[in-house]
Amino acid sequence: MLAITKKTQYRILYADTDMMGVVYYGNYGRLFEMGRTEMIREMGLPYIELEKKGIVMPVFSVESKYRNVLKYDELITIETTVKEVPLVRMEFFHTIYNEDGKLAHEAKVVLVFMDMKTGRPVRAPEALTNLLENYTD
Amino acid sequence: MLAITKKTQYRILYADTDMMGVVYYGNYGRLFEMGRTEMIREMGLPYIELEKKGIVMPVFSVESKYRNVLKYDELITIETTVKEVPLVRMEFFHTIYNEDGKLAHEAKVVLVFMDMKTGRPVRAPEALTNLLENYTD
Amino acid sequence: MLAITKKTQYRILYADTDMMGVVYYGNYGRLFEMGRTEMIREMGLPYIELEKKGIVMPVFSVESKYRNVLKYDELITIETTVKEVPLVRMEFFHTIYNEDGKLAHEAKVVLVFMDMKTGRPVRAPEALTNLLENYTD
Amino acid sequence: MLAITKKTQYRILYADTDMMGVVYYGNYGRLFEMGRTEMIREMGLPYIELEKKGIVMPVFSVESKYRNVLKYDELITIETTVKEVPLVRMEFFHTIYNEDGKLAHEAKVVLVFMDMKTGRPVRAPEALTNLLENYTD
Repeated sequence: MLAITKKTQYRILYADTDMMGVVYYGNYGRLFEMGRTEMIREMGLPYIELEKKGIVMPVFSVESKYRNVLKYDELITIETTVKEVPLVRMEFFHTIYNEDGKLAHEAKVVLVFMDMKTGRPVRAPEALTNLLENYTD
Repeated sequence: MLAITKKTQYRILYADTDMMGVVYYGNYGRLFEMGRTEMIREMGLPYIELEKKGIVMPVFSVESKYRNVLKYDELITIETTVKEVPLVRMEFFHTIYNEDGKLAHEAKVVLVFMDMKTGRPVRAPEALTNLLENYTD
Repeated sequence: MLAITKKTQYRILYADTDMMGVVYYGNYGRLFEMGRTEMIREMGLPYIELEKKGIVMPVFSVESKYRNVLKYDELITIETTVKEVPLVRMEFFHTIYNEDGKLAHEAKVVLVFMDMKTGRPVRAPEALTNLLENYTD
Repeated sequence: MLAITKKTQYRILYADTDMMGVVYYGNYGRLFEMGRTEMIREMGLPYIELEKKGIVMPVFSVESKYRNVLKYDELITIETTVKEVPLVRMEFFHTIYNEDGKLAHEAKVVLVFMDMKTGRPVRAPEALTNLLENYTD
């Protein structure tokens, strides 16, 4: 069973908020991106290296549940988990906690692998799946 | 049966794109906002009027499916549909088409009604539900 | 003397605001982009056509003066003016008015012309300067 | 003479880029915000504390010079400097370096102090100026 989790911290800016005084619902995508990028980097394969191999990972779907607000200047924690070695899609689960450790958000973001030249979907590159196997029991 | 649909057009800016050359996945939230705001306005109750009555509508959940890319300078169409008169949650369905009329995105965005002063969820205000009844068979 | 002005309207979204309840200072760049894009389009040469000719126009400098706030749901007017036929730089002057016609913002945005392949600055393409000459007394 | 400088690091996201493959010119505002927020925090007075005292700091003007591009995944450095104890305006100078230490951007951002209740400009609060005096020769 695969179990890999990465915690990333980020401090909320004015730029992230809206006039309701909390993070704008449409700004969570960058928080998920931050989470998954730092997870992949820690595994030893920064996303930019994948692109150098000609692979890009466009987003296929997002499911997002807003549990509690995120406020200005809070130091939030984005917990990112991957549960399965990807075949053609890679699923990232994000749980965001506010500064007090309270659950604020849950999301599932699914990405696919695409050959940059052909624009066609491809299988997960071995450079990535091999690394993920290291985290499998 | 309720059936209300509004089409909103928008031209993609550089600001919306990312280095993949298409609209950044995290920028769709503002497209949905544009769609639902224009729908409510057309019904005769701009969202800002709700706020003046002390009601805000925070987002509860988003489900988003990326079917095709949206490119720079395309004049896209955001089709927004409401299928049910809301009780405590209001569901907006968004279908986005690119300039050629090709399906690009499908999303369901659920909002709740909240009393601005107490911060507590409330029922859909009659000012809104009465208007929606007009669109019901 | 060259004198070309284009007015573009835009309605402020929640996405544009911050917790101070007005448009976030860092979101004006997209308003300027909207203004200059629509000006160039109206002249008969959409920016995307320039790119097809291999020319991109990176921003060189921005000077921005915040005179009054822009509020949620306001239908603002972005007035964009070009005063000189460009040689190697093109200067856009933007004046933004709120819904009541009150001056809200003044900006000067300078762009350069760059050959997409070489990454080197080039002179303004004739396709553009010829069009601008039409607006010269 | 006052001389206070703070270096803040940030890694560029896809969210920050545009289809030219570099940070969108309109996204620098959040980099400046990050720089000045971290400077004030380090001085011992987080901006949020000013707001609790009823003072907000709207932006008055921005001057921005784009010297070199900032690329995806680069770990950039935002160097923020304050040169004078503010009376009614506070000037922040930002110099941004790319991962290789190359100058990428220079900006001057001027903010004013405003009483949150009256909406009127006020003098710099002593809580802030006293701290700044500590950095004066």
